[in-house]
Amino acid sequence: MTNSRDRKRPKIKLNRQEGRRPKLSQFARTLLREWKKLRLPDQKASVVVAVSGGADSVGLLFALDELIKSNRLKINLIVAHLNHKLRSKASDADAEWVRSMARKLGHVAVIKAVNVRAGATKKNDNLEQAARRSRYEFLEKTARSKKATVILAAHTQDDQAETVLLNLMRGSGPSGLSGIDSVRPIRDGSEILLVRPFLSWARRADTEAYCRHRHIDFRLDEMNEDERFARVRVRKQLLPLIQTFNPRFVEGLMRTTEILREDSAALENAAARLLELSLGAESLRKNGRPLRADLLRLAQPAVRRRALRQWISSCRGDLRRIEHVHILAVENFLFNTRSARMIELPGGGRILRTRGLFFCEIPANLL
Amino acid sequence: MTNSRDRKRPKIKLNRQEGRRPKLSQFARTLLREWKKLRLPDQKASVVVAVSGGADSVGLLFALDELIKSNRLKINLIVAHLNHKLRSKASDADAEWVRSMARKLGHVAVIKAVNVRAGATKKNDNLEQAARRSRYEFLEKTARSKKATVILAAHTQDDQAETVLLNLMRGSGPSGLSGIDSVRPIRDGSEILLVRPFLSWARRADTEAYCRHRHIDFRLDEMNEDERFARVRVRKQLLPLIQTFNPRFVEGLMRTTEILREDSAALENAAARLLELSLGAESLRKNGRPLRADLLRLAQPAVRRRALRQWISSCRGDLRRIEHVHILAVENFLFNTRSARMIELPGGGRILRTRGLFFCEIPANLL
Repeated sequence: MTNSRDRKRPKIKLNRQEGRRPKLSQFARTLLREWKKLRLPDQKASVVVAVSGGADSVGLLFALDELIKSNRLKINLIVAHLNHKLRSKASDADAEWVRSMARKLGHVAVIKAVNVRAGATKKNDNLEQAARRSRYEFLEKTARSKKATVILAAHTQDDQAETVLLNLMRGSGPSGLSGIDSVRPIRDGSEILLVRPFLSWARRADTEAYCRHRHIDFRLDEMNEDERFARVRVRKQLLPLIQTFNPRFVEGLMRTTEILREDSAALENAAARLLELSLGAESLRKNGRPLRADLLRLAQPAVRRRALRQWISSCRGDLRRIEHVHILAVENFLFNTRSARMIELPGGGRILRTRGLFFCEIPANLL
Repeated sequence: MTNSRDRKRPKIKLNRQEGRRPKLSQFARTLLREWKKLRLPDQKASVVVAVSGGADSVGLLFALDELIKSNRLKINLIVAHLNHKLRSKASDADAEWVRSMARKLGHVAVIKAVNVRAGATKKNDNLEQAARRSRYEFLEKTARSKKATVILAAHTQDDQAETVLLNLMRGSGPSGLSGIDSVRPIRDGSEILLVRPFLSWARRADTEAYCRHRHIDFRLDEMNEDERFARVRVRKQLLPLIQTFNPRFVEGLMRTTEILREDSAALENAAARLLELSLGAESLRKNGRPLRADLLRLAQPAVRRRALRQWISSCRGDLRRIEHVHILAVENFLFNTRSARMIELPGGGRILRTRGLFFCEIPANLL
């Protein structure tokens, strides 16, 4: 990264408390409203904020700083930055920059460096995925060590639109089109939440405007300009073309993703009830509760298929490598009484038929 | 339209029956499989096929002709063509071309001309919408006069992809992303079905390849090249760009739309059950059955909102001008006991609260 305005670097204006509450920016006020809507802790809590140094995360850091300095939030902020070492000197400079920024504002900074490229090569992994995995592990570890239960990430509606379009193009189905959630556990089963307080209202242009308005410096990542990355091409080629059809495309897409998330919640709920009704008492064979197929047969396909997903997920612990086509195969196995007595699941485990009931059998090493 | 191959026009090869069944093309065989899957009538029925003269509809006509001449389908085919008069002489030439093609094959042709542009100007209507409306009215009237209960349209998976992308860009929500159905009534409440037997398997390239393979001529519509139409720009700019991200995008999108249609069916089903449970007996006030809010309150938002849509649709007869935001307003009216006693619906009608129950009141002129 390089500084966004290298020539002229005005001093950062800090809101110092002077007896009365300083006037909040509109941006920080909107963030506070979202904070309350999401029921995030407003006192006696430690909160980790992930700061890369770009306009979005720096804007989030400074807006949080406004809310803390003005006593609207009485929380302990921890600035976390992972140096991915992807751009050698530039990466190191970013890390130093974030450290000094946090110090100036008076917040704790946790900075760590990993060699993502080496790790990705060793595991034969996609670079973007490897970077994300390292970053999330680092953030969770930082939150745990600082006794924080919330990690904030500065994803905007533009990130959401890019994610949804990438998922759409990949053919990933309704769940992919629902996009990312404002609140989710940082990892399945973790008690630490990953929260995106910009997702429901802020565009990238808003964070940039806020930084400009407050004369805040931020860093530019040249990887955000590298069109070898699909996400960059979505931002630089696909979104501009789509906006020639509808300049308010992103706003409309946000409504669509919201409705899709509600649809999905209702269907998952119905599937959970169906699954509960379809599961018998614990069997003696140590294969967990047996599943009966008769109720499943009567259900709507969309609900039945989600119930089967939930069943596999709950007995195996994950849905790794299970795609829609495999759920259709399990469905077929349940209803086609002339088929084999057993099918293997990709990623491990199998489903057995015994006297009209179905069992999900998982090898011990997967449990 | 101009002829696709004006220089060399080989004679159309007709499969004449000669005692035994002539060999079917792979394309016609796949159409027959879809025909059976959709449970379309294979004997003693009249079926209307909409033929514009383009590769898709001409391919459909000739594949049906194969199936009829080879006795796989014992149906009476009616070729229907509406001359929209949008391209003066070229439109007239297309109509004549379709008429002569139908005659050569030995099928009845119904050809009609309307001045869509004049009609659209009079009603202040979008040209594409006006053309579609005239065409559908013509097709339904033709089906009725010929005692046909099925109208076939040659929409391919490429049309589906274009429709879904246009809907996505318009911000039209999950129902728009589900795309068009293979089978639906040609008009709400009509007993005549509009069937798209290509939608689940054929790409535009397949219909063109079939036409080429059988040396069948077809017409090229220069309006399909006119980039002032959004659909043409989707075809010529957006889809090619998306396919640089994923060459198999259309195939993936078809799976996504299928899952979305199943999701939607399950949610509409759950909503219908919820609505039935929430409606009381017919009231004396002639306002139809009263609605109670308590069960609705307990339901998942996605199911509740669909139930409210169904309620309004069933009491008013349509959902004209009712958007998602209006459903949210009705929901709010039902649950917010301190609000007014009545709200107006856009497009006519209102909802009243009387002693904790809700009535949908529609002015007589709308019923």
